[in-house]
Amino acid sequence: MSIDVERARADTPACERVTHLNHAGASLPPRQVLDAQVEWLRAEAETGGYELAAQRADDRQRTYDEVAALLGAGNDEIALVENATFAWHQAFWSLPLRPGDRILTCTVEYASSYVSYLQAQRRRGVAVEVIPDDEHGQVSIDALARLLDDGDAGGGDSGRGPVGLVAVTHVPTNGGVVNPVEDVGRLCRAAGVPFLLDACQSVGQLPVDVEAVDCDFLAATGRKFLRAPRGTGFLYARRSRFETMDPAFLDLLGAEWVAPDRYELRPDARRFENWESNQAAIAGLREAVAYARSWGLDAIADRVGHLAEALRARLADVPGVAMHDLGTRRSGIVTFTKDGHPAGEIKEALAGQGINVSVSEPSSTRLDADRRRLPPLVRASIHYLTTEAELDRVTAAVAAM
Amino acid sequence: MSIDVERARADTPACERVTHLNHAGASLPPRQVLDAQVEWLRAEAETGGYELAAQRADDRQRTYDEVAALLGAGNDEIALVENATFAWHQAFWSLPLRPGDRILTCTVEYASSYVSYLQAQRRRGVAVEVIPDDEHGQVSIDALARLLDDGDAGGGDSGRGPVGLVAVTHVPTNGGVVNPVEDVGRLCRAAGVPFLLDACQSVGQLPVDVEAVDCDFLAATGRKFLRAPRGTGFLYARRSRFETMDPAFLDLLGAEWVAPDRYELRPDARRFENWESNQAAIAGLREAVAYARSWGLDAIADRVGHLAEALRARLADVPGVAMHDLGTRRSGIVTFTKDGHPAGEIKEALAGQGINVSVSEPSSTRLDADRRRLPPLVRASIHYLTTEAELDRVTAAVAAM
Repeated sequence: MSIDVERARADTPACERVTHLNHAGASLPPRQVLDAQVEWLRAEAETGGYELAAQRADDRQRTYDEVAALLGAGNDEIALVENATFAWHQAFWSLPLRPGDRILTCTVEYASSYVSYLQAQRRRGVAVEVIPDDEHGQVSIDALARLLDDGDAGGGDSGRGPVGLVAVTHVPTNGGVVNPVEDVGRLCRAAGVPFLLDACQSVGQLPVDVEAVDCDFLAATGRKFLRAPRGTGFLYARRSRFETMDPAFLDLLGAEWVAPDRYELRPDARRFENWESNQAAIAGLREAVAYARSWGLDAIADRVGHLAEALRARLADVPGVAMHDLGTRRSGIVTFTKDGHPAGEIKEALAGQGINVSVSEPSSTRLDADRRRLPPLVRASIHYLTTEAELDRVTAAVAAM
Repeated sequence: MSIDVERARADTPACERVTHLNHAGASLPPRQVLDAQVEWLRAEAETGGYELAAQRADDRQRTYDEVAALLGAGNDEIALVENATFAWHQAFWSLPLRPGDRILTCTVEYASSYVSYLQAQRRRGVAVEVIPDDEHGQVSIDALARLLDDGDAGGGDSGRGPVGLVAVTHVPTNGGVVNPVEDVGRLCRAAGVPFLLDACQSVGQLPVDVEAVDCDFLAATGRKFLRAPRGTGFLYARRSRFETMDPAFLDLLGAEWVAPDRYELRPDARRFENWESNQAAIAGLREAVAYARSWGLDAIADRVGHLAEALRARLADVPGVAMHDLGTRRSGIVTFTKDGHPAGEIKEALAGQGINVSVSEPSSTRLDADRRRLPPLVRASIHYLTTEAELDRVTAAVAAM
């Protein structure tokens, strides 16, 4: 099935006025998502926030069902939270990492995660190691296999600690790569090591199935390629893993205080949620996931892949433009620079012509930026509702600078 | 200044249809709050979420200014977050508590906090002690003074650890008490002990000034007496304290990743925020705080205090009704039971007559509930827009059961 782009754009009235190439920042929501939020907010103001949530408890449950169906997970393995960072932190800081444990991560790891590894080094005495890339700029599966075999848990005699976690970014915030996470998952499972996937930029533009990837935890946001409201995200946590974890932040939703000195964790992954949440935003998330699934993630991925490569080809032909995307398989995130024009200047110039792009700072992906000596990059992130005419438009605008 | 109740109710159209006595759960937002949210969401869908936030960066800054003005704080001492639990956790788990440190808390402490103390006992080896109440059911200031003087930090020779934290609930989720937090703060300051205040149920119904209370941290929610959107909250963190803390959950808003092995914390309290937030909800929060301030917190507190006592007096006259509120100074939260009618039954019966109340479970405040052998309680929480006619209405409905 191919995407009916005209219908997709009709569902997104802003398409008539703006060329939005910032879906990796925050997408434009379809009207179904906006309407669901506004309707919920108005109903809350008429009914009371708690009263409405009680009347519509089934609606909330359907959100777990939708997200679970999107990921191929059980609906008891999903926590609905406010953003991917919170989801990621709840998984990471709930893990039983001990002094000497090694965390393996990738060169394109996101700042928020890497800063947390540095904190964990100090707080818990863990070690952080970066899995080298292969020749295409993706996580090297051979290198990962060697690293997993290299610690005491691998039966080696290296004096190095066991690998306590593999944490990898599926699609980085810039640079185009789609990491081979299925191969990462296969190795982690064989080694018995927990695998935490940052799927913030992949969910919604690619099919992401937790059984195919074989990850134990997956953190994602709503506002990017899923086109859900700002302030939404979710955590997938594999039941066999989360049952042994101590939730980092726990409240009376996740635990019942049964005796003065004792609490009992709830049985499902909602132990990683807070009791309070923005129910209107969750209604929007539910619509957004259902909407993405109605197009089909395979169809979305096909169109995104095609358009992104078309944009890379066009921009590469513009004199002075350098492309900065790696990988054999690449995402809808296109990054480039143009000689003599700082990224911020290009962003502003395009904004003046009704074209939304963003700037990726080196501090967002420090290891990759330092290694490749990257300056701030212009990031044009397309989606299935982008048109070839829009690709021409942004290319012409960059060429005219 | 007294409250113009007619105008307050006109700003809240649902008042015509429902007797909302669940402001301690989630209040009904005034139309100004709803409109601000809806306008923001529509503008995001037209403009792009990041693009709108950049255009309206001043609006976000004004939210810090409003919250800071509400609390008598500096605007660099405020973090805007998704709920009071997150705010509280970020403060609590960022504190440098060491094995043997004592945490002093109160009998009416909320489940979410107490469960975290039990986690901290296990994780960090801290000790938890409950400050006895005085004869009115409030935190005993004499007892607190003795406990603060009782550890090694107090110069004693007791073999007990120093007090690492005093954490108290200002207004509990049920039971009516307003704890004497100014006296708690005075003692903590004199002892040099950090003081974390849970002001979830007090901000918006009472004036709460961080200088008068002399707390170091204050966690609050938007949706209750402030009448802000669900999914909003904030943390006040005193600059002299937060500068020495290690933020529990840190992302690239709170820290810049400046070199592969080094990050730098941002200078203000936003180090406790996540980068992503629901900007529409924050727009609603800003309107809600401005709206509350436009009435004046003293005027609100006067009316709330008067109405709550009036409701207690009415209900106490109903045969079979037992009131469960303690304290010399009492909040807008009124709790009661009626012989032969479980709280859940009363809630349902009232809901059928368009009256919203809630049920407080013993597990929410386990220490207080066990001590007083409390069953589930009916909680009727009033606000300044409640009328005497509504008090008559709920009283008659309870009497008729």
